[in-house]
Amino acid sequence: MTRLDSQLAFILEIDKLKSILRQTPITGPERRRENDAEHSWHLAMMAALLAEYAPAPVDLQRVLRMLLIHDVVEIDAGDTFAYDTAGYSDKEARERLAADRLFGMLPADQASEFRDLWDEFEAVSSVESRYANALDRLQPLLLNSRTGGGSWANHRVSRAQVLTRMEPIRHGAPALWPVVEAIVADASARGWLLV
Amino acid sequence: MTRLDSQLAFILEIDKLKSILRQTPITGPERRRENDAEHSWHLAMMAALLAEYAPAPVDLQRVLRMLLIHDVVEIDAGDTFAYDTAGYSDKEARERLAADRLFGMLPADQASEFRDLWDEFEAVSSVESRYANALDRLQPLLLNSRTGGGSWANHRVSRAQVLTRMEPIRHGAPALWPVVEAIVADASARGWLLV
Repeated sequence: MTRLDSQLAFILEIDKLKSILRQTPITGPERRRENDAEHSWHLAMMAALLAEYAPAPVDLQRVLRMLLIHDVVEIDAGDTFAYDTAGYSDKEARERLAADRLFGMLPADQASEFRDLWDEFEAVSSVESRYANALDRLQPLLLNSRTGGGSWANHRVSRAQVLTRMEPIRHGAPALWPVVEAIVADASARGWLLV
Repeated sequence: MTRLDSQLAFILEIDKLKSILRQTPITGPERRRENDAEHSWHLAMMAALLAEYAPAPVDLQRVLRMLLIHDVVEIDAGDTFAYDTAGYSDKEARERLAADRLFGMLPADQASEFRDLWDEFEAVSSVESRYANALDRLQPLLLNSRTGGGSWANHRVSRAQVLTRMEPIRHGAPALWPVVEAIVADASARGWLLV
């Protein structure tokens, strides 16, 4: 297999991300569940639009690549719902195996480039990964707030659970925290969140 | 409306891209039509993976932002099928109006930043936009080749039409042209393309 063959095989393999469903609904009239490919596109757009709210200047190219690949492991590991405690117990192990297989399809230099980006996202260590993780929390909050409570209402999630889940926004995009507080207050008032 | 309010309104508005369907099927077992948000994510991933085949070094951050927004105008203008001659007659006018409205929702600096990126993509003038346009042609070719002919078979498209449609790849990613020729030859041999 040539270098180009490996790259094309990976490109076709990750098409499967379009079939991995999240709990969050899209805002369109179909009101169907969002998939990981759409979610990743939306996060990358947000990263390009909201960079001024990162806690320090970010390398946007790095953030974009990180967000584009951050959920690719879910092709093998599946999407774990944010408020599913049992699912979280083996999430890390499942996702590491997936990363080994999927990034391992690429030529060695690109395999380590994308694995490093994914590890960085998971570690929430750099300013880029703190900003990327903040957006990953904010995006479903925005969609749920526009769809009558979305995945919160379906799963009986509480106000306190949402605020805990949104905590990374305080560190990765602190200027956006008042938006979180306003949306959570509104959703609580409307009865979309358990109090 | 504050600057942040405008940015969040735009982020929610472009969620509609997830409801704009293309003719190309995804490779998953649902074999449903791909939407523009998924397509844009896939192109951005390809741009990050295939940059070595661009005709000259590209500014990847610029290419990524260009691909992420290149189809946003279709929220108002709809998707025009690549081989629909009638649809193409007023495509440009419809998309310009859409760009005015959609990018006009953003704060002035970002409105002109994204409008410029979209204009650049449409003009196919820079090395970045030539590379981005090449990927925009290659991606449905890859999906059609994995789905029994995909949108070609459904619309009785000919080998010559596909080769003409793929022409931008010669200029935007010349090293990938042999891939195009191999896929088209294979699809013709299988009877997926009219000869």
